[in-house]
This record gives sequence, structure tokens and C-alpha cells, in this order.
Amino acid sequence: MALGNDYEFQDCAISRALEVVGERWTILILRDCFLGVRRFSDLQVHLDIAKGVLTQRLAGLVEHGLLEKRSTGGHPEYVLTEAGLAFAPVLAALAHWGKTHANPDDRPTRQWRHLCGTELDPTGRCPTCDLLPPIRDVISAPDPDRPSRRTDPVARQLTEPHRMLEPIRP
Amino acid sequence: MALGNDYEFQDCAISRALEVVGERWTILILRDCFLGVRRFSDLQVHLDIAKGVLTQRLAGLVEHGLLEKRSTGGHPEYVLTEAGLAFAPVLAALAHWGKTHANPDDRPTRQWRHLCGTELDPTGRCPTCDLLPPIRDVISAPDPDRPSRRTDPVARQLTEPHRMLEPIRP
Repeated sequence: MALGNDYEFQDCAISRALEVVGERWTILILRDCFLGVRRFSDLQVHLDIAKGVLTQRLAGLVEHGLLEKRSTGGHPEYVLTEAGLAFAPVLAALAHWGKTHANPDDRPTRQWRHLCGTELDPTGRCPTCDLLPPIRDVISAPDPDRPSRRTDPVARQLTEPHRMLEPIRP
Repeated sequence: MALGNDYEFQDCAISRALEVVGERWTILILRDCFLGVRRFSDLQVHLDIAKGVLTQRLAGLVEHGLLEKRSTGGHPEYVLTEAGLAFAPVLAALAHWGKTHANPDDRPTRQWRHLCGTELDPTGRCPTCDLLPPIRDVISAPDPDRPSRRTDPVARQLTEPHRMLEPIRP
């Protein structure tokens, strides 16, 4: 699962992290989990990926302890564990870097805001409150100047600001 | 180059970032650039990857504006640009997460310390000085309890604490 032993002889924590999350799509699956998407079918339609790939990546994330598979009202749901939740600073940093340094064509994007309304800094801190808010206190909001072009049911729910981790079940 | 258009319809800055840095090895190449490795041959021996893959990844990083190719004393060197340097918070967050949540077998690892000596927090801040140090003021040091097993010339230089970005030319 994940990258297997390919980075085995790279002696650092970054290589170890990449063995767990470095496969294609894995980080975007985690992004959706932080947004509150929990069901296989919702992940599949929002990510628009092959079911086999999603199945394999979810199994890897469960195996490595980032996601837990639960049954909620008869529906299996994938929920972030403590180790999964601890991945938030990586996503915050990637989102900020991508928006600032890798978006020449001004693609749609979202803002990460503290509950107070201030946009988070590159490290996920709220500059107004001078603290690192827990991810539950972060709002993911569409950038009004660059709204999403997606029209699937998950994307439609996300046209409004959405509190992180609050379940999305279209 | 990079992931091409595979994430094109994923409307967020994270997917855009992954198109630039999401290919296998790219993030580990950036890690080495932050450590001060600048020459193709040094990157190749320290990363232990195929020359063709390294050539392709470096070309992508230059194309996307994270690295600049310079000639220093007749030797071509790859140096981080402003956009490349801005990637530091992602590496800091990945390193911290990997060490804390993805290292069950206690692999070798390194510490990121501020010049003051304090280890950085998960977001790359120095808790003692209460600031986000510029990457030039960060020391990468081997964890004394988990030293590297690599024996290549770059790894041998890195057995001592090393200031980030300070050129390594074994």
C-alpha cells in the first residue's frame, strides 16, 4: 500500500510521510475528509476518480491509521482519526502555497478562515487572534472571485461557507 | 510535466499545488535543495534515484519556477527561487507529521531547530521566540537517537547540524 518501500532508504520523516500520503489522490481524499465528506459515493463523485483507485486509497488510509471506517445509520463512513486530524497543517500549508505560487491561471480556489472571519496565514494561524485554531474552528469558503466550476452534489453544498469536519451528506 | 491535467477539474489550490509537486520524488528533491544540495550529481547520489527521473523532475521544478539553474564556477547548480523558498512551511509540516504520526518503526529522522536551539513546532514556528523563523535561520540536525544509515558523501556532511540553504558541495 502507499509507496511501499521505494523511499525506504531515504532517512527522514518527510519520506516516511510521503510513503503514507504520497500516492496520487491520497491528499485530495484527505482534503475532502476535512471538508466533511464521509461516504464512498460522495468522495467518488466529488473527486471524480475510478472506484478501484478510491477503494485502494481509502484502505491505505485506514491501514495507516488516518481514517476510521464507521457505520452510521447503516451507511459506512470514513472519519479522520487523531493522526488524520494532525495532518491539517500540511493541507493548510499546501493550500496557501498553491494559491500564492502555483496558480498562474487563476483557477477556482477556497479560503481557510478562522471562525472570527480572518483568513489563515501560510502556517494555518489566525493573525488576528494570534493562535493556531483547531481545525473544527476553521471555515472553508469559496473565493467569491474564483467560484468552483464543479456541479456535483458535494460541490453544490460547498458553494456556501462550510465549517471543517461538519459532515456533508448531500 | 508534473501531474499534467489529471487534477484539472479539482477546483482548489491544493490540487494545483499537487500538479506542481505531487509527482514521486519531487518533494524529496525540494527537501534536499533546502538542505543546500545544489548539484545534479549530489542530488542523484543522496536521493539514490535514476538519472532520467531526476532530470525530468528538475526540469519540471525549473519550468514551474521553484528552482533556478545557475552556473557557479563552471558547475550548473539548482537554487531555490522565491516560490521554492515559500514551500518551506509544507516541508516543515510534513516532517513534523511524518515523525509524529507515520513512523512506527522509528526510522532515522532529523530535527528542525531555530538558531536559538529550540525545535520548531508542527507549523514551523519557534515556540521559545514566538516567531516563524525564515528558513535561513533554521538548523537541520540529525536526531541523536535515530541517526541516518546512509553513507553517501552528502549524508556524511549531514551527520553534523547544518544550516538550511547553506550550500553542500561534498
